[in-house]
Amino acid sequence: MERLNSTLEKISPIDSSLLEETQKRLDNLTKPLGSLGKLENIAKEVVAITGKRNPILKDKVIITMAADHGVAAEGVSAYPQEVTPQMVYNFLSGGAGINVLAKHAGARVVVVDMGVAVDLTPDPKLIVRKIGYGTQSIKNGPAMSREQAIQAIEAGIEIVESEQKKGMDIVGTGDMGIANTTPSTAIVATITGAPVADVTGRGTGISDESLSNKIKVIETALAINNPDKTNPVDVLAKVGGFEIGGLAGVILGAAAQKIPVVVDGFISTAAALIATELVPDVKNYLFFAHNSVEVGHRLTLKHIGKEPLLDLHLRLGEGTGAALAMHIIEGGVKILNEMASFEEAGVAEKTRKN
Amino acid sequence: MERLNSTLEKISPIDSSLLEETQKRLDNLTKPLGSLGKLENIAKEVVAITGKRNPILKDKVIITMAADHGVAAEGVSAYPQEVTPQMVYNFLSGGAGINVLAKHAGARVVVVDMGVAVDLTPDPKLIVRKIGYGTQSIKNGPAMSREQAIQAIEAGIEIVESEQKKGMDIVGTGDMGIANTTPSTAIVATITGAPVADVTGRGTGISDESLSNKIKVIETALAINNPDKTNPVDVLAKVGGFEIGGLAGVILGAAAQKIPVVVDGFISTAAALIATELVPDVKNYLFFAHNSVEVGHRLTLKHIGKEPLLDLHLRLGEGTGAALAMHIIEGGVKILNEMASFEEAGVAEKTRKN
Repeated sequence: MERLNSTLEKISPIDSSLLEETQKRLDNLTKPLGSLGKLENIAKEVVAITGKRNPILKDKVIITMAADHGVAAEGVSAYPQEVTPQMVYNFLSGGAGINVLAKHAGARVVVVDMGVAVDLTPDPKLIVRKIGYGTQSIKNGPAMSREQAIQAIEAGIEIVESEQKKGMDIVGTGDMGIANTTPSTAIVATITGAPVADVTGRGTGISDESLSNKIKVIETALAINNPDKTNPVDVLAKVGGFEIGGLAGVILGAAAQKIPVVVDGFISTAAALIATELVPDVKNYLFFAHNSVEVGHRLTLKHIGKEPLLDLHLRLGEGTGAALAMHIIEGGVKILNEMASFEEAGVAEKTRKN
Repeated sequence: MERLNSTLEKISPIDSSLLEETQKRLDNLTKPLGSLGKLENIAKEVVAITGKRNPILKDKVIITMAADHGVAAEGVSAYPQEVTPQMVYNFLSGGAGINVLAKHAGARVVVVDMGVAVDLTPDPKLIVRKIGYGTQSIKNGPAMSREQAIQAIEAGIEIVESEQKKGMDIVGTGDMGIANTTPSTAIVATITGAPVADVTGRGTGISDESLSNKIKVIETALAINNPDKTNPVDVLAKVGGFEIGGLAGVILGAAAQKIPVVVDGFISTAAALIATELVPDVKNYLFFAHNSVEVGHRLTLKHIGKEPLLDLHLRLGEGTGAALAMHIIEGGVKILNEMASFEEAGVAEKTRKN
């Protein structure tokens, strides 16, 4: 609890005094004013987040956290629970979507076992921070204890601090956990107050019948657990998941260290919702990678008050959207650092009369 | 004319028999069915365009074509005409937006003088295919002769063929030319039949007063020249530009060589409109990089029948959006080539019951 509290206290507003100064520098580069649109906003935001006038996003990291969910037993997913450890092994051997897209973006992948239901074969590339062997089913009671929820968040904070010591300049969030759209939806419905049916999607691709079962399971979970929407740790403990808590910790820890965060899809956004409810200033440290197909995602982004960068109809998770968006974010920063000014290039500026 | 005709004849439909086969391969990779959304469509399309089951997009090229426009004298741009050659020098010395973003995407930039109003200092990196010293003002008569229009298109075809011999796997289009949103808008209004006022934008950022002048100039140009909307070469000659013709040639030449094209913003899309009106099948060889801020862009994409990949509020041109989109397209192809299948990774597939 101490580490969580000290992290929350350390989070300060981004340095918005740098926004205007950076825009002036952008306006002096050889392009019409504002013509690089969102790339210019990204550059300004990364300056204000890091406090560095010429930030370099060299060491790019995707932290992909895996865990299991007791609620998988309720038939809410199209895949069996054994897929969670199988996919972790796939991450470690480099064959998953996140491996391909992270490599493409020049990012490294850090794989964390936050609570897979079985013990995984040890691997030097795997960080084991198991909070439990999967959560309890939220249909019958709380997913985890309040202590476990705090442990999960603190594990995320510690991993960010450790990666930052290795040189991490920007972090993307990723998730793996069969059934994890179910707790994510429960978190979103609780905090935003939206009806469960409006924010429940098909996850990995379930049938109409399974979807209506999933909605009922989440409604039951909320009725039985009655999470306190004004207390994000209570929400996480009652209806969340270990990897969701870990990702909330990654987000909080990165904001405390002034490291920009690229939030992936729906599960990562549920973690971001926990983090921004704890400290609203956190939202200014976040880029939202893409507009997920999962129906509750857009409403959650609206609640947080941010727009996604990409809209590629993704719904894989793992950090895949974050890896793609990192290229765009790094591009924005390179514009600021590498483009010539009008003076340097000997290019005439905009004429007054128009 | 011979080279143009032989190129048009060479363009065949993409190999759509490969689309279904490729989707089956994508469905066998370790991810929920269809969960990589547009990346999966991109992978399929690149296979069908190239006819290669595992295409590699290694040699990525942005062809940025520059030219001047007589209509610049009518006060339609915020910048003086001298900026066109100044920006070409900026491209050659590596300080422009396209240099930064192409390098970021791992692409090389090929700079072409299609008709800048002055002679440029020779540079081994500059390809000179000057069709004229700027076009004539379209407000007073045709921009160029029909022969010049064909020469411009054929120059683009030849440059694509030359780059293809060097190994080019994918090509992005880029433009530079003070006032070139004016001829682009005239082309779009002619071919789509949209009212000029509905498709005229602020280009590099002109005032309300300049915008209404620009609309009047384009209306006058259409009335005086009366371009034949069923004859794309006539439209190009009467109200187009040398770099627009060159880019139409790049697009046609690439389609004839089965090379995927990434079309940048509004000016490149006007060139794509000329190309797709000449041979409708060309559209299946094209990816549209982004949704430009320029108001006529979306309507033009609708007319062509394609959706843009990105929406980052860009309006710079040069090929900047194409460079960013190339990373996404290459990512889609890498998914197909590099991800593990369920069998390879030992991951269970979707269960039947859901």
